Amino acid sequence: MAPLKSWLAIPGNSDFSLSNLPFGIITSRNSQKEKRPAVAIGDHVLDLLAFSRGRGFSGLLSLEQYLDVFSQPTLNAFAALGRPVHLEVRTYLQEVLCDGGRYAGVLQENEELKKSALLKKEDTKTHLPMHIGDYTDFFAGINHAFNVGTMFRGPANALQPNYTHLPVGYHGRASSVVISGTPIRRPNGQILLDPAADPKTPSFGPCRRLDIELELGCFLCKPNALGEPIRIKDAENHIFGFVLMNDWSARDIQTWEYVPLGPFNAKNFGTSISAWVVLADALEPFRTRKLQNETTVLPHLQEEREDTVFDINLEVDLTTPGGAKTTISKVSGKNLLWSFPQMLAHHSSGGCPMAVGDLLGSGTISGKSEQGGDLGSLLEITQGGKEDIMLAGMDTRKFLKDGDVVTMRGVCGEDGERVGFGVCEGKIESAMIF
Amino acid sequence: MAPLKSWLAIPGNSDFSLSNLPFGIITSRNSQKEKRPAVAIGDHVLDLLAFSRGRGFSGLLSLEQYLDVFSQPTLNAFAALGRPVHLEVRTYLQEVLCDGGRYAGVLQENEELKKSALLKKEDTKTHLPMHIGDYTDFFAGINHAFNVGTMFRGPANALQPNYTHLPVGYHGRASSVVISGTPIRRPNGQILLDPAADPKTPSFGPCRRLDIELELGCFLCKPNALGEPIRIKDAENHIFGFVLMNDWSARDIQTWEYVPLGPFNAKNFGTSISAWVVLADALEPFRTRKLQNETTVLPHLQEEREDTVFDINLEVDLTTPGGAKTTISKVSGKNLLWSFPQMLAHHSSGGCPMAVGDLLGSGTISGKSEQGGDLGSLLEITQGGKEDIMLAGMDTRKFLKDGDVVTMRGVCGEDGERVGFGVCEGKIESAMIF
Repeated sequence: MAPLKSWLAIPGNSDFSLSNLPFGIITSRNSQKEKRPAVAIGDHVLDLLAFSRGRGFSGLLSLEQYLDVFSQPTLNAFAALGRPVHLEVRTYLQEVLCDGGRYAGVLQENEELKKSALLKKEDTKTHLPMHIGDYTDFFAGINHAFNVGTMFRGPANALQPNYTHLPVGYHGRASSVVISGTPIRRPNGQILLDPAADPKTPSFGPCRRLDIELELGCFLCKPNALGEPIRIKDAENHIFGFVLMNDWSARDIQTWEYVPLGPFNAKNFGTSISAWVVLADALEPFRTRKLQNETTVLPHLQEEREDTVFDINLEVDLTTPGGAKTTISKVSGKNLLWSFPQMLAHHSSGGCPMAVGDLLGSGTISGKSEQGGDLGSLLEITQGGKEDIMLAGMDTRKFLKDGDVVTMRGVCGEDGERVGFGVCEGKIESAMIF
Repeated sequence: MAPLKSWLAIPGNSDFSLSNLPFGIITSRNSQKEKRPAVAIGDHVLDLLAFSRGRGFSGLLSLEQYLDVFSQPTLNAFAALGRPVHLEVRTYLQEVLCDGGRYAGVLQENEELKKSALLKKEDTKTHLPMHIGDYTDFFAGINHAFNVGTMFRGPANALQPNYTHLPVGYHGRASSVVISGTPIRRPNGQILLDPAADPKTPSFGPCRRLDIELELGCFLCKPNALGEPIRIKDAENHIFGFVLMNDWSARDIQTWEYVPLGPFNAKNFGTSISAWVVLADALEPFRTRKLQNETTVLPHLQEEREDTVFDINLEVDLTTPGGAKTTISKVSGKNLLWSFPQMLAHHSSGGCPMAVGDLLGSGTISGKSEQGGDLGSLLEITQGGKEDIMLAGMDTRKFLKDGDVVTMRGVCGEDGERVGFGVCEGKIESAMIF
């Protein structure tokens, strides 16, 4: 099938082709205070508040009564309309933006509406797309779990007995989720300076082992009540869309603090997400099989189909303060033992209530290679901080230095019809002085 | 000092004496949809929306510009005004309600205002007092940590090396925090039916080891920005007030799931809190020393004073479906190794942003006795489910049965000037059938 072509000039390598149309929240140069929903299209952004006020949705009468969702400062109200409506709106906008599309006239020939609603991306600023009630981070990247487990317990005992029976996860800190571009301050925390010599006396100071975690994030669009689990067969209907996620991690703080209740301050100083939510429907063509689970999972986690993860080409760049950029990882998003529907079915199986806007993280996504080219954390790439990563500009790293910029990207499909995520980026600032 | 006496009849044993005046959120028989702030006083509730609309705050001119905080469905806006304002409002309301008080005329002689604002408690219903952005549960009850650690690792290794250096905690699930009185459905989950025989193959089914955790909850009233820690000397200013908390726990689910990322579904099916937030100022007279920490803590956790916990008389009743009630625990709330200011300083020390309305749990509060009369969980009372608790009505328990009601109470001070919490109560409903 030939790619959909827009009457609007869209660069061939844009993440935001007509096949994508991800949703986000923007302010603009001309309206810096009013956060509002928008759709990314090539180098432009369609301001959905202006578009709806200018009767842009006049061809979609079924949406008439819900147009106030576009005057909200988050996507929660739009998300809550449900997946059939997301599909309808996205399809309609494709018809509006497509060359010769059924509703192209709505915008293409309406100079006033174009002027008010079709903004240049550089004139806009993105904000957190959802109000996140709760954020949960899973550990579904089995290669990562195996690599890290091997460092602690050797390969024979790398995975805990529960690992293949349930998607292990923990409750994260919703308040610390930030939009791509937000600087990340190196955390202070309790650290063992020389664990081998003194494993019991911590110091307090700046993290020395500041790391990344390459993840996918999944936003929910449908709630369940306390005590009413989401069944695995219904779970897809609860999924709004996806973002890239960098779960910044302070490995030295984590090592000291995490027993017995799990990661805490090692994770809650910042988790970055990309700005544009790629709708679940946009990723449909890129479904693929998740990694094989040698355990037969219990019935409440059994899926009807195998292709419940996505073949997303993920990449991580590290740019040093000097400006030299190195791609330190390339890996497919399919490297998960558990799908998001399984995570959701497990999470709610005891009755936990999920809300619209809740965020689930996949856990770090790593491939299986031993060369380190497809690993999702510095901990794995450097084998626990033992080996240097060689960077462009004759530089090296074990963990992140102040001023480093980490940029994650993710894309599906070919030029001209890419379904991409844009960037998830953050720059490390130096620690507070206590 | 003689207790403050109200012109309103207040039962001598009421938790809600004039010395207390806790804040909550109500609806009433006559206004069932409009959630609004209120203060509990004896067997009555002062509806602050009606009180402010009826010019009840006319004696407190400094509050004039903030009166819209009383037309909100949560206490967040009121809390955000800050501790000096909470004190001012509470003191003013004492003057309004006190016999011969400076502002007694505002209400006592205003029949119209009394009729609209002074409601009988039985004509009102309480709701979650705050919008909880994030909920964190700590593990600061050292006796509990020691008792549970002993079960797993023996007394010599009961506490992990980090335990006396930092207040261990984990991120909880904000969406699962419910108001006292909400039924708690027994969760289903993955469970090892016979761990000794087969420690690696779980079944899925109703929790068999459903437990309570007696805790104090602390609501915050002042935020900090990402990357800007709250210093220990400022932490008190961030504390709005306190509630009782029952962190219902599924011990069998927990045992299987919690390695390596901590408790998850074992905790997120419901956490009950009492309805009335006892303001930090109301607890001032009941300050006492926290438990002695033999470790010298790092400077960022050092407090200027020792009396940073409260001597609250906590009790737990278990009422069987047959109606027989047994008090299964009595313990002072002072049994903490870490104070809430320390928890807050630790939590934010890496830069984690805290918001108004965030909830911190103390962790289970147990005493040191070996008789089991002062232990805050069934796990401890029954020594890991080995010993029966003897109940009234010739009944016994190891863990909770369907239909059991657990009621927590907490009170400071003498009759006539009690500062109490009311109840934190929940009834166990049978599990969903999958």
